[in-house]
Amino acid sequence: MSATIGVGLIGTGYMGKCHALAWTSVGAVFGPKRRPKLVHLAEADPQLAAERAETFGFEKSTANWRTLIADPEVDVVSITTPNALHPEMAIAALEAGKHVWCEKPMAPAEADAARMRDAARAAGTAAILGYNYIQNPMIRQIERLLHEGAIGAVTHMRIEMDEDFMADASSPFGPKSDGAHGYGALDDFAVHPLSLLSVLVGLPRRVVTHMSKPFAARPTADGGSREVETYDIANILFELESGASGVLCVNRSAWGRKGRIAVQIYGARGSIVYDQERMNEVQFYSADDDPAVQGFRTILAGPAHDPYGRFVPAPGHGLGFNDLKIIECAELLRAIDGDAGARVIDFERGLAIERAVHAMARSHESGGWVDLS
Amino acid sequence: MSATIGVGLIGTGYMGKCHALAWTSVGAVFGPKRRPKLVHLAEADPQLAAERAETFGFEKSTANWRTLIADPEVDVVSITTPNALHPEMAIAALEAGKHVWCEKPMAPAEADAARMRDAARAAGTAAILGYNYIQNPMIRQIERLLHEGAIGAVTHMRIEMDEDFMADASSPFGPKSDGAHGYGALDDFAVHPLSLLSVLVGLPRRVVTHMSKPFAARPTADGGSREVETYDIANILFELESGASGVLCVNRSAWGRKGRIAVQIYGARGSIVYDQERMNEVQFYSADDDPAVQGFRTILAGPAHDPYGRFVPAPGHGLGFNDLKIIECAELLRAIDGDAGARVIDFERGLAIERAVHAMARSHESGGWVDLS
Amino acid sequence: MSATIGVGLIGTGYMGKCHALAWTSVGAVFGPKRRPKLVHLAEADPQLAAERAETFGFEKSTANWRTLIADPEVDVVSITTPNALHPEMAIAALEAGKHVWCEKPMAPAEADAARMRDAARAAGTAAILGYNYIQNPMIRQIERLLHEGAIGAVTHMRIEMDEDFMADASSPFGPKSDGAHGYGALDDFAVHPLSLLSVLVGLPRRVVTHMSKPFAARPTADGGSREVETYDIANILFELESGASGVLCVNRSAWGRKGRIAVQIYGARGSIVYDQERMNEVQFYSADDDPAVQGFRTILAGPAHDPYGRFVPAPGHGLGFNDLKIIECAELLRAIDGDAGARVIDFERGLAIERAVHAMARSHESGGWVDLS
Amino acid sequence: MSATIGVGLIGTGYMGKCHALAWTSVGAVFGPKRRPKLVHLAEADPQLAAERAETFGFEKSTANWRTLIADPEVDVVSITTPNALHPEMAIAALEAGKHVWCEKPMAPAEADAARMRDAARAAGTAAILGYNYIQNPMIRQIERLLHEGAIGAVTHMRIEMDEDFMADASSPFGPKSDGAHGYGALDDFAVHPLSLLSVLVGLPRRVVTHMSKPFAARPTADGGSREVETYDIANILFELESGASGVLCVNRSAWGRKGRIAVQIYGARGSIVYDQERMNEVQFYSADDDPAVQGFRTILAGPAHDPYGRFVPAPGHGLGFNDLKIIECAELLRAIDGDAGARVIDFERGLAIERAVHAMARSHESGGWVDLS
Repeated sequence: MSATIGVGLIGTGYMGKCHALAWTSVGAVFGPKRRPKLVHLAEADPQLAAERAETFGFEKSTANWRTLIADPEVDVVSITTPNALHPEMAIAALEAGKHVWCEKPMAPAEADAARMRDAARAAGTAAILGYNYIQNPMIRQIERLLHEGAIGAVTHMRIEMDEDFMADASSPFGPKSDGAHGYGALDDFAVHPLSLLSVLVGLPRRVVTHMSKPFAARPTADGGSREVETYDIANILFELESGASGVLCVNRSAWGRKGRIAVQIYGARGSIVYDQERMNEVQFYSADDDPAVQGFRTILAGPAHDPYGRFVPAPGHGLGFNDLKIIECAELLRAIDGDAGARVIDFERGLAIERAVHAMARSHESGGWVDLS
Repeated sequence: MSATIGVGLIGTGYMGKCHALAWTSVGAVFGPKRRPKLVHLAEADPQLAAERAETFGFEKSTANWRTLIADPEVDVVSITTPNALHPEMAIAALEAGKHVWCEKPMAPAEADAARMRDAARAAGTAAILGYNYIQNPMIRQIERLLHEGAIGAVTHMRIEMDEDFMADASSPFGPKSDGAHGYGALDDFAVHPLSLLSVLVGLPRRVVTHMSKPFAARPTADGGSREVETYDIANILFELESGASGVLCVNRSAWGRKGRIAVQIYGARGSIVYDQERMNEVQFYSADDDPAVQGFRTILAGPAHDPYGRFVPAPGHGLGFNDLKIIECAELLRAIDGDAGARVIDFERGLAIERAVHAMARSHESGGWVDLS
Repeated sequence: MSATIGVGLIGTGYMGKCHALAWTSVGAVFGPKRRPKLVHLAEADPQLAAERAETFGFEKSTANWRTLIADPEVDVVSITTPNALHPEMAIAALEAGKHVWCEKPMAPAEADAARMRDAARAAGTAAILGYNYIQNPMIRQIERLLHEGAIGAVTHMRIEMDEDFMADASSPFGPKSDGAHGYGALDDFAVHPLSLLSVLVGLPRRVVTHMSKPFAARPTADGGSREVETYDIANILFELESGASGVLCVNRSAWGRKGRIAVQIYGARGSIVYDQERMNEVQFYSADDDPAVQGFRTILAGPAHDPYGRFVPAPGHGLGFNDLKIIECAELLRAIDGDAGARVIDFERGLAIERAVHAMARSHESGGWVDLS
Repeated sequence: MSATIGVGLIGTGYMGKCHALAWTSVGAVFGPKRRPKLVHLAEADPQLAAERAETFGFEKSTANWRTLIADPEVDVVSITTPNALHPEMAIAALEAGKHVWCEKPMAPAEADAARMRDAARAAGTAAILGYNYIQNPMIRQIERLLHEGAIGAVTHMRIEMDEDFMADASSPFGPKSDGAHGYGALDDFAVHPLSLLSVLVGLPRRVVTHMSKPFAARPTADGGSREVETYDIANILFELESGASGVLCVNRSAWGRKGRIAVQIYGARGSIVYDQERMNEVQFYSADDDPAVQGFRTILAGPAHDPYGRFVPAPGHGLGFNDLKIIECAELLRAIDGDAGARVIDFERGLAIERAVHAMARSHESGGWVDLS
């Protein structure tokens, strides 16, 4: 009989469901050393908590997340609540000696994120963030190509993240337009591309930022309108540690873009192009091919791209967004088992990502370059 | 407390894993009326059966599938064994009053498939086949467009299914090249496109077929070679009931194709194009658009395409192959609950699909048109 | 001072304009041995003939094409009139010892095409047909790949030609729906794919055909309707001399398709994919690439693909449809100079293509396979 | 008999050939009021001048470009010599009362470009620059969509221009790496995207720039190496007059990119995407489409997109790079005829474009925003 690991889940919105699915499926997909046991679920409303526990397959439910954290049967805590609640919950869990799987970003304020990092250092348990895009086998394949020198030294890169949920000018004023909730696209989106930069080429060493508002005001419920305080668009020029230049663009008002994270990496001997909207493909150009037949190759995900084969034995059949969360869960289990090779964004790296975001915002204010150090 | 339904799984190869994942996840994704309870798993080797039961989360295991069928706690049986075993197992399960979820195709021989259909009629329980491609929200969207008349009456269609696992001439002679195991690409592949035809436009009324062998012989283990008896390529011209013409091509030796099922549907007012390798997209052309801006629209899967939203609330984030099996499982649960609107290929429809395949093979023999009736 | 060659042009519709542009531009693009001199233009209406001669830059004009053929200053005659007029004009020009550049197809009736071929044999001058698609540098690149064995022996191919000018059911009955003008898409379109087959893999050895009508009737000017006699859709299964199988589909009622000629060539070591709507690209898949980075390469036309560099020195800048006619003109000039390597479809090969079309039509009638021999 | 216009051509490199082809073909394609007469060609070497005159079809040749300008038969002068020679030649031609068609950019130094503009103002003849990308029917279609409000007010745009002729680190040090010849990609490339901005949304009002060098040094002929002084990569954040933000990236060391000019325009009701490597297509997304079938439409160039129909009557058959020059020539002839609607970048607009480039370079030096005013 293999060992088990007790799971607690706080929050049952979309990300809660996504964590629940990962915990439920990781056993059959990866056959990990420790089999997850769904122990405890916390949700603010006790009735909803009970319902969700049954739907998601958890044994117990509570309306008090501290009860869950105090449960000795719980070894690892999934935190999928609104960002502002992360610090308190994550720190409490870490102080209780639990492993933590917290949705990103860590916290709206840099200081809170730093406190979370400190707590993780003190606890010594696994503490990771839910940056699932890095788990895509195609992103791993890009990393492998870079590592093997398939495109030589990186000379330039561009990364764009675009969706359109804020593209409609007639959508009412809400929290996303309220300056109290953040900068806008910068904190909402930029952490994702930065997580990819982090694993592929490292974070920028300096940046210059410009943010803009597609719409000056949005309608309010009372028939009036309110001035928009956040920036749905942000654009950043950056330099990597190597001196290579880069461009980062994020836009949550880009009509027609639904889940676009478009990456272009140019190197001394080739190029790599990727788009999250076609997450089972990567484009690769090699200057070492015969000139008459050089071209971007559309590589379809397959068993040659670990861990795709855990899901489907045949290539070209496609993974989905939720599958990335299952991979993340497997990596978390590796981290919990002390595997140094676990592919995760821990609180240390997560803090560096969020510090980059805050530095970008300062650059917009100052109108000049800001160093990240 | 919601009702449960007891699940038995026979076979634990890739499709067994896929069924297990579906049974495990369908609760969290769909919140169905009856919650699956993973009761019993059967696998030929008792040791392996026990291991897989633990990995997949089943309570009991057995090396004797008849024990599983006899288990009163089992309400529904997933059959994922080699095709030749389907008839005996499915008929036994049906005779025991169980619901059956059997992988396709039903059986190598048409007569056995007919016996399975008869057993299902007699049992009156739900008996469906694992044609998961029809569950893709984009295929449903195509069906909706056709139903709404978005492209008018269908005038012509083409459907191609291509992979490359038989493309390497140096791959050794194996069962897929042995005439005792079937026709070749025709029975291996054609059932998938036919399942799509079945739900979208109905099965053909007559066909003419040509099959070919890319390689006359393949190497054997003893250093010799053996003549290939099956056809890795099959091409079919057909007529639909409406008189519209169509073309079906299947090729399992098509280098570079990994999971291609390319569909082109032409109508009196527009067109629809789809490729399973980009399963989260569908192309739609409407002749009703302003002529200067007419073009194929690349529609990305999203919550507007039911049941995508059950998996991810944001559009363009992508479902994967295994997600289709979860949808299929939810539809099976609807069928079990007697919902006439359940979207399934039952044994009745499955038999019609397999009869079409056999008719196509007869056409290759005769060199002329064959009626399907 | 280089030698010149006197050009006569019969017909000034679109193809006449296209020939005129080719004759005007071939000098600057290719710097051929003999520089074209635009001598004589013939058009049925004398006024229009004079106007077009000025616009196109011809010295003389006539309403009597026999006058043009009799002109001793004319060395080569471009024939761009309706197909039914080709035989008389081409044979007259050949009998007068002229070189002939005739638009395809040769003639509606096979016997007339055969007479043209006989006249060309007797004349011994250059006599070619306007199959400009074969002149695309990307088609030449495909030919080179096949010749070099880049994809090994061809195991299967598919070729589709689709446009939508007959897709609107409300378009009035016209000559294209009149059985007196031909079979329909078969003679209208299939010659183009067959010209590509001819240069790439050779013509089929046997075929089976099915044709269909998307619309049974079309409206007439008097408010009534008339039964359509031609087939806007034709589908053909074929076998090459090598025994490899193939599929040819042509459809002139395919909404959204504008100039599609989609080619798929599968071989023992790779694949090639091409679409005329993106005529400056070819896709190439090699099974010899490292498995983890195998994929279809999108090769952009460039100076590596002769004679692209004659038009633009930088790759990826794109040739257009009319440029193919300039290449064809240059090849004609090579043929006139007796260069056996000239890449042209002469009347001999052109007749073989048209015989294939008639054989395909006979197969539709008989419902069975027809040999082409 | 229609009027003629006498043409002089200075320079016979690639752009000279391209102008010659345009002058030769514009008559047949557009049937303009005045028919070009190829009068005089100038090339530094007298022998080469004579050869090229014959190849391109000019009546006279000279090694002294001042002779050409003095020729009373010459009404319009094409200047296709290296950029540094443009000012002297263009000003001389303008002072002689000729119309001028000068390749871009005007001049390496802003002051020289300003003198050219002044000379054009004084002359009052037509004086235009060779920005042929704006002539693409698809770019005109984008302009039409913007003008009609099809995507509402522009909220954000991105434009990238990438090629790979400087991507090989082993290419020897040459003029393009020599700081005396310019900034690098900025002046080499950015004028093209700026010409598109100029006609589509207007030039930026302020910019911040970062330039980088993919390779610090390049090999020299003597086996040593020399430090690279120019920047093969430049990235710019900008603001349009409307306040909308934008990003401009240019890279001449981008492996795999051959003629890429990728444009993304986001508006309040839709989006437009374009890539010069597929210059016969434009992507259009409308938020006014039914949500279930919203998607980017791939619109193929056709007669609905003026002046495509002048070249080919059928849609989807494709124009090429050289065809854009023919359109430009036709627009020049309209400008010469005093047509205020002629679509050209005259010296006034051309100067504004070059001033933008110099401002961008200053921003790189200062590290901050620079106003363009």
